[in-house]
Amino acid sequence: MELARIFQLEARDGDARAGRLLLPHGEVPTPVFMPVGTRASVKTLDCRDLRELEITMLLGNSYHLYLRPGLEVMRGSGGLHPFMRWEGPILTDSGGFQVFSLGDLRKLKEEGAEFRSHLDGSRHLFTPESVVEIQRALGSDIMMQLDECPPGDCDEAYASASLELSARWALRARRAWEESRPLHGHPQALFPIVQGGVHDHLRRRSMELLLAHDWPGVAIGGLSVGEAKPDMRRITALCGRELPVDKPRYLMGVGTPEDILESIALGVDMFDCVLPTRNARKGTLFTSLGRVNARSARHAMAFDQPLDPACDCFTCRHYDRAHLRHLFHVEEISAMRLGTLHNLRYYLKLMEGARAAIRAGCYPAYLQACLAPYRTAAPVV
Amino acid sequence: MELARIFQLEARDGDARAGRLLLPHGEVPTPVFMPVGTRASVKTLDCRDLRELEITMLLGNSYHLYLRPGLEVMRGSGGLHPFMRWEGPILTDSGGFQVFSLGDLRKLKEEGAEFRSHLDGSRHLFTPESVVEIQRALGSDIMMQLDECPPGDCDEAYASASLELSARWALRARRAWEESRPLHGHPQALFPIVQGGVHDHLRRRSMELLLAHDWPGVAIGGLSVGEAKPDMRRITALCGRELPVDKPRYLMGVGTPEDILESIALGVDMFDCVLPTRNARKGTLFTSLGRVNARSARHAMAFDQPLDPACDCFTCRHYDRAHLRHLFHVEEISAMRLGTLHNLRYYLKLMEGARAAIRAGCYPAYLQACLAPYRTAAPVV
Repeated sequence: MELARIFQLEARDGDARAGRLLLPHGEVPTPVFMPVGTRASVKTLDCRDLRELEITMLLGNSYHLYLRPGLEVMRGSGGLHPFMRWEGPILTDSGGFQVFSLGDLRKLKEEGAEFRSHLDGSRHLFTPESVVEIQRALGSDIMMQLDECPPGDCDEAYASASLELSARWALRARRAWEESRPLHGHPQALFPIVQGGVHDHLRRRSMELLLAHDWPGVAIGGLSVGEAKPDMRRITALCGRELPVDKPRYLMGVGTPEDILESIALGVDMFDCVLPTRNARKGTLFTSLGRVNARSARHAMAFDQPLDPACDCFTCRHYDRAHLRHLFHVEEISAMRLGTLHNLRYYLKLMEGARAAIRAGCYPAYLQACLAPYRTAAPVV
Repeated sequence: MELARIFQLEARDGDARAGRLLLPHGEVPTPVFMPVGTRASVKTLDCRDLRELEITMLLGNSYHLYLRPGLEVMRGSGGLHPFMRWEGPILTDSGGFQVFSLGDLRKLKEEGAEFRSHLDGSRHLFTPESVVEIQRALGSDIMMQLDECPPGDCDEAYASASLELSARWALRARRAWEESRPLHGHPQALFPIVQGGVHDHLRRRSMELLLAHDWPGVAIGGLSVGEAKPDMRRITALCGRELPVDKPRYLMGVGTPEDILESIALGVDMFDCVLPTRNARKGTLFTSLGRVNARSARHAMAFDQPLDPACDCFTCRHYDRAHLRHLFHVEEISAMRLGTLHNLRYYLKLMEGARAAIRAGCYPAYLQACLAPYRTAAPVV
């Protein structure tokens, strides 16, 4: 089997872990935050921006790329890496989450998930096998199994049946992975996804079913989908304790600086979220001083004051708050890019700091120091 | 008087001219195309993009900047140059054109132009004097007089009365210029604007009134506003022949590659237009092979083929048509920036080539070679 071993654990501080993913397109220090490049582009950025930000790994969305530009283009281009001029590692999701959140008239059956495109109403069927095929076309370093992601408030019976289905799909995906070959000349890993809602015994059942097999890594799904925060923390902690120590753990779709730092403390290695990029486009910026609303008139005359004095991003090195506030106020497109550059750099530095703190054995203090400005009632600035 | 001499004429080829503007923020080889930075930002670009494109001079819009961020911010920031992190020369328009095209309930009187903001309906009065004051706050290298820009289809009586009013305003602007001082430590030039519609004798009358005084340069207004193309060419040629040889001539708001190259042949030195940036955001790109619709499905599989094989812009160096088409197709924000980078680079190289051709005495051949692909009926690609 290809790529069964892609992780080196390097240090632990409590349950927090520092390690390294060994992937075809490079090594990735963990904990890692993967910016989301939904449609072969991290919104507003270009390929040089990605390099200069020192992004180590990206996430791509199978659902979107399957619909546009489609698999013919993805195969013809040599995969997502050359297509988007990104040479580092990529993880692709299975598209399942988008089928359930974006697709119309979706129908779930044993075979797979049927849906209509949110773009043109055309009918499609995602199966565990077809989704591996899609990700073969994309050529990601890490592929995800197709799973069902039930809503955070679903009842126990639904969560139970759903995790059983997702586990059967995991094994079908695994077979498709084993029986297919990479299209673009490099091996690809496959992660199963632990489901089971907010129920400890269901999460244990999901892990039992999945971990009967050896996988390169494991994802934790079905969190940050509307459940209560204490439930999310408890389930993350449970998975953190009970998942194999030698495999990377990926908490899907999480999240805020607070959620990420606390999940690292619970043993998670990998994260992705649209939050820093989406919020940036609306002018909500994350800084060492807490959240900043870049549109606020209070910045109008803030000449020569960078957004975040502790930040080394392009935006903070070149512009002051007065200019940034003006750009957001008049809704210039460039504001969205400058905000995105900052927010991603903030997230990446947060992860670099987390890794250093774990290796130095002072992660709890690091977490408290980073989150203090986020726990005040109002934004500092 | 400050800045009476800002132009060196270096070479002529027929009526086409190569020269040099000598401005407080640097020297500008002419012919020059000034990208439009309406609201202290060339849409989608940042300050590094502007430098890397080798832009030599920018245009800013007084109307927009007066409304947002407003004069208090512009004065406090030290002017447009530090505010937008652009160290090269800037020309600002007078805002008159926007008052007539964007302002609501505008009322024209001898004193000036009254209007309501298109943003919030607030009432404002632009006078020749207040518009100099606005441009003093902006700190542009070249300021423009307030003028009335009548529509291209107005009758002769209207055009005549209008040019007389604009000429009186020019003299009031001149006095305000002479009697005021720069706010940001560098001198600022002022250009009057020749009006008179498509009527040769009215254009001559306008020049006679304005050129009774010595100015650093002269603008040609009221063209490219709906008049027939032969009228535009004839009036441009008239001004090209009759304006003082030793002063730079600025044809406002023009235009297409064809309009610009032909106007250079008629003796124009300076241009600005939103066309390359606005079209870029819609996916209409200018190339050495003619206009390209970047959205077209014909590019879907054009791997490893740059948009323009003759172009050295960031976009053409990093992306192929397949990727660019995808980005425009799915309406990624980054497509607008990549298109803008290309179109501006194309325009700037067109001007560099024009200057070199004039100095080499082969401008007519250069013009024909550049425009040939634009004169075919359909886009080449």
